[in-house]
Amino acid sequence: MKLIEHSNGFTLNYKNEVVIEHTEENPFIFVGKGHATYDMYRGNFKIEENIFERIPLINYKLENDDNVKLTMYTEGYKMLQLDFYEEAGRLICKLNTNDEAINRVWIRLYAEKEEKVYGLGEQFSYFNLRGKNFPLWVSEQGVGRNKQTYETFLADVEDKAGGDYYSTFFPEPTFVSSRKYFFHTDESSYMNFNFKENNYHELEFWHVPDKFIISRKDSFLELLEDITALLGRQAELPEWIYDGVILGIQGGTETCLDKVKKAKELGMPVAGIWAQDWEGKRITPFGKRLMWNWQWNEEMYPGLDTEIKKLSAEGIKFLGYANPYLAIEGNLFKEASGKGYIVKNHIGEDYLIDMGCFYAGVVDLTNPKAFEWYKNVIKVNLIDFGLAGWMADFGEYLPTDAVLYSGESAELLHNKWPALWARLNYEAVEERGKLGEVFFFMRAGFTGSQKYSTMMWAGDQNVNWSLDDGLASVIPAALSLGMCGVGLHHSDIGGYTTLYHMKRTKELMKRWIDFSAFTPMMRTHEGNRPDDNWQFDSDVDTLMHLARMGKVFNKLSPYTKALVKENSDKGIPVMRPVFLHYEEDETCYNLQYEYLYGRDILAAPVYKEGVEKWNVYLPKDNWVHIWTGEEFTGGEIEVEAKEGYPPIFYRKQSEYSKLFSEVGKI
Amino acid sequence: MKLIEHSNGFTLNYKNEVVIEHTEENPFIFVGKGHATYDMYRGNFKIEENIFERIPLINYKLENDDNVKLTMYTEGYKMLQLDFYEEAGRLICKLNTNDEAINRVWIRLYAEKEEKVYGLGEQFSYFNLRGKNFPLWVSEQGVGRNKQTYETFLADVEDKAGGDYYSTFFPEPTFVSSRKYFFHTDESSYMNFNFKENNYHELEFWHVPDKFIISRKDSFLELLEDITALLGRQAELPEWIYDGVILGIQGGTETCLDKVKKAKELGMPVAGIWAQDWEGKRITPFGKRLMWNWQWNEEMYPGLDTEIKKLSAEGIKFLGYANPYLAIEGNLFKEASGKGYIVKNHIGEDYLIDMGCFYAGVVDLTNPKAFEWYKNVIKVNLIDFGLAGWMADFGEYLPTDAVLYSGESAELLHNKWPALWARLNYEAVEERGKLGEVFFFMRAGFTGSQKYSTMMWAGDQNVNWSLDDGLASVIPAALSLGMCGVGLHHSDIGGYTTLYHMKRTKELMKRWIDFSAFTPMMRTHEGNRPDDNWQFDSDVDTLMHLARMGKVFNKLSPYTKALVKENSDKGIPVMRPVFLHYEEDETCYNLQYEYLYGRDILAAPVYKEGVEKWNVYLPKDNWVHIWTGEEFTGGEIEVEAKEGYPPIFYRKQSEYSKLFSEVGKI
Repeated sequence: MKLIEHSNGFTLNYKNEVVIEHTEENPFIFVGKGHATYDMYRGNFKIEENIFERIPLINYKLENDDNVKLTMYTEGYKMLQLDFYEEAGRLICKLNTNDEAINRVWIRLYAEKEEKVYGLGEQFSYFNLRGKNFPLWVSEQGVGRNKQTYETFLADVEDKAGGDYYSTFFPEPTFVSSRKYFFHTDESSYMNFNFKENNYHELEFWHVPDKFIISRKDSFLELLEDITALLGRQAELPEWIYDGVILGIQGGTETCLDKVKKAKELGMPVAGIWAQDWEGKRITPFGKRLMWNWQWNEEMYPGLDTEIKKLSAEGIKFLGYANPYLAIEGNLFKEASGKGYIVKNHIGEDYLIDMGCFYAGVVDLTNPKAFEWYKNVIKVNLIDFGLAGWMADFGEYLPTDAVLYSGESAELLHNKWPALWARLNYEAVEERGKLGEVFFFMRAGFTGSQKYSTMMWAGDQNVNWSLDDGLASVIPAALSLGMCGVGLHHSDIGGYTTLYHMKRTKELMKRWIDFSAFTPMMRTHEGNRPDDNWQFDSDVDTLMHLARMGKVFNKLSPYTKALVKENSDKGIPVMRPVFLHYEEDETCYNLQYEYLYGRDILAAPVYKEGVEKWNVYLPKDNWVHIWTGEEFTGGEIEVEAKEGYPPIFYRKQSEYSKLFSEVGKI
Repeated sequence: MKLIEHSNGFTLNYKNEVVIEHTEENPFIFVGKGHATYDMYRGNFKIEENIFERIPLINYKLENDDNVKLTMYTEGYKMLQLDFYEEAGRLICKLNTNDEAINRVWIRLYAEKEEKVYGLGEQFSYFNLRGKNFPLWVSEQGVGRNKQTYETFLADVEDKAGGDYYSTFFPEPTFVSSRKYFFHTDESSYMNFNFKENNYHELEFWHVPDKFIISRKDSFLELLEDITALLGRQAELPEWIYDGVILGIQGGTETCLDKVKKAKELGMPVAGIWAQDWEGKRITPFGKRLMWNWQWNEEMYPGLDTEIKKLSAEGIKFLGYANPYLAIEGNLFKEASGKGYIVKNHIGEDYLIDMGCFYAGVVDLTNPKAFEWYKNVIKVNLIDFGLAGWMADFGEYLPTDAVLYSGESAELLHNKWPALWARLNYEAVEERGKLGEVFFFMRAGFTGSQKYSTMMWAGDQNVNWSLDDGLASVIPAALSLGMCGVGLHHSDIGGYTTLYHMKRTKELMKRWIDFSAFTPMMRTHEGNRPDDNWQFDSDVDTLMHLARMGKVFNKLSPYTKALVKENSDKGIPVMRPVFLHYEEDETCYNLQYEYLYGRDILAAPVYKEGVEKWNVYLPKDNWVHIWTGEEFTGGEIEVEAKEGYPPIFYRKQSEYSKLFSEVGKI
């Protein structure tokens, strides 16, 4: 670290890269005050900011001993003290202010025109984040996510739910620059990171961050290893996941068994049944909804307790569903409420949240007793019952005006909630000694999910081909999460959101299956309106298609397992940006719909309707087209891409090349 | 004026009303710096603000002699000097700063919770402006103007043209508070007036205003008189306007004569023909467009020079069209360009603006020679040719990066342009000695239009029933302009914008005719896609309908003339908010679709489809339903409201009551 003063400011370098450039005209830090209103409607937020002041801190005092101790101030007015020091091979900057009323900070990091930026959690619309600003606020992901599309318009008008390019279940103030550094802060307030300017990145915080961290490495792989050394790494996945497809089925024990039987008869490798309605359903004007009372519903799933064991003996696991909310009609809510474990409103009552035709309370995870109680619900009702996994859904709905047991501000806890929810699930599994055997998958996340969320899924895609909210959007989502150290990601096969005119077609279902065979987990979903959607068992052709791609997935498992282990050991994601291994190739930095599946496979999923050929960019290497064996050495190519034969290439020199060639013959 | 200091601030009173409340915690003024990008597409602007700083000026120094001389500052840093003094019965505040880089100012005026605010030029969606913020920027008005409507969505996606609730051709930093003061500033930068807060109005300026003005009166009538004493008043309208309907016709001399003949045969009082294509048309992929070369097109209008005289002898005037732009193919552009009269771009070339499939230049009205030259075009080609009036269209398209002859910033001149364009037309008429005989009507405006625009029209409504952009929206538009001292207003009968699925129905046409009989001018428009729209002559029934309502309009003219004269003498608008004469009635302050047509008529136009009855609020008075003679003394009532019998009431004690009762028998 080196601070060099010049005529009207200074430059802070770290490992030969400029981090901060400060001049009187272009100061690097601003402080201020403001207040915001958060209007939440079913997990969608309208946030309005009222800025009182924004003061550039132009003057500085420097105490340069070992570390850089900097006081930034405005004559006789505001000040902020910044202590820069190195720790564990990273640059740390601690912030302190003399004015407790300050609740806005803007930091400008030095930037270069051609620089690119990746990460910020799960970003669905843009992988390279340069040229846009990204509010960081845990919320519903939005339906459509592009104000130019009709679906977004309808969702906005009918449910305030359209979202925008930055809407995400899982934002995180962590990013990687193409200048080979990462930035991270443990801050959890509303933030807005702006990468629009040529000369700086402006990072806005609605709270004074305790500190921020910058790490510089010689390669992106080393950076990812360092991010996860800091934030934690995911455990390995249970072995049984690689056995085949997890079928999303609802409707009761018999339906599940029937569907599995049919699938098995056609040779499908089935790893599990995922029945989100294992705890029962309710009928609302909104359609069928789950019961939100996390225990086996015996009426709907008669004999499930014994069937789970039978299925398990046949090598088929049973998975369920839970979320951090309790519907007010259930016994769990009543118990939690009685114990005072439900998050309160400002007059001390249980804060009841409109979930769409029913109300639910949020278990107060800041109360250690409530946390333990709810963890125990998971242990007893889910794990001990025999579930091998569950969707640990939601996490986005903590209202900012809630009153928490810990006394902390809900405005600051809102973003952290998904990570708390992840930790609860994680500890439940860990304390039952089931890590690596039982797992859960989440859509919401924040800093901390790296360690505590055993698997992510991409949330609720539309059942369509749209870039911002359809099949395609899953790829940048996986890649951006990977750049934050979350390397396990999959999606609802076929998408989820089925509204308005949208219905899942057979073609979309098949393309999504093809894509998912090259992700670390295959799981189908019926969508929110199953009857409107093409399903995996809508015809024999689709069943056969899924059976074959399930075999591909299963056959690949030695390779996939090694990738998952690498993710667990080093934080190198399973699905990787192409530039991770081809740093010298400029083109790779702009690929957002292609990825490396580990070191040795390049996947370029087909995400458009009605095509039979596909254009792929291959960085310079010896590539083999997995289905035909045709060899390529790089560049823009066009390949046949019929259903069931997605554009997949492996490296000829891979130690798995024999395996890959066998996969190609399935 | 009185400044009272208290423990940590001061209060400034003016005529017993608090104007400013300043404390350390809630200072009344902020200064700062910022820069904006203005992205114009065919008159629609995407404006992005990048705020560098916003500094509250907490400290103050007071030199209190006769006037209040106040220096607001931040310790050793920014300051702003404010000199308050009284002049012509108004409170003036002059602003001066020591820092030339300051280009943002925020002023907080004291406000009360129940206070209401009106004006800001022509506002189509809201008459009472409280609860919203209003950017003040001259632009296209938007198609749909409500992000919740499908038409707005389509217009946004296809042409960036949807607009929003505040989009207007005619904004103005002038408003009237229900606390009986008006605020005005001559500032012309981008402004944003925010009336959302309970305790203050925050007025944002992207330039340090030279001064602002506040006037307090005992009644709204006196306030309007004072606004127009300050800003100017409109001339009276030509007598011939009251003769009947001005028919919007296109297509050549013969078509015009034929249509008038047919109308006259059915007894329609016709005051004039308005032929916007008098200067010719061009065919573009966009549809038919006008030629934008302001001179008689002899091919399209053969013999028009002599026909104008013949028509005039029969009591029918001929009206045309012009705007401040010159299409590059025309001889006028070539002449102006040759003389250097076209606004330049940053490299000194003529700035050519995309007008939708053709380009045009803006005549540089800051160049006195160009101004005179263009004025002479109007004099010779329009007035001397024999036009009795014209639509002086547009005025919104000055790009902010244009280079002007005067050296002034186009960012600051942009808003002023419509008023310059109005003055040019006004002076052309005046210098020909034709005021009160020849006139023009405009959609765009700004401070100064009070004096120079002889008549406003409401611009381009959709041919539908929408509140934000249909028939209804014309009423708040007229009322808000009236509160800024612009008292002459009318609209395209039937609306204009015919896009997507929108087509004008017969019912809409007839309701619009009914409404327009109670405005100071009746003029039909074919709309931008005439073939898709119901026209005044689409059937005999509609012709007869217009004939009858034209007679109503004509019969009312002694009354209307007196109103127009009152507007000219005192600035009391012809169409008036009901509260103007019923200050004690709280309900009247929220009526935005009813108005007083002068002192003695209350009009409540039907603006919904498929109704036969209508609810009307009548303030306490003796009202007579004009069509039935039924009497009312006030309150919520329901009346029959068939086509041709709009809900119109007159005051029984009016000196015009005999006239009104005769009108009711037509």
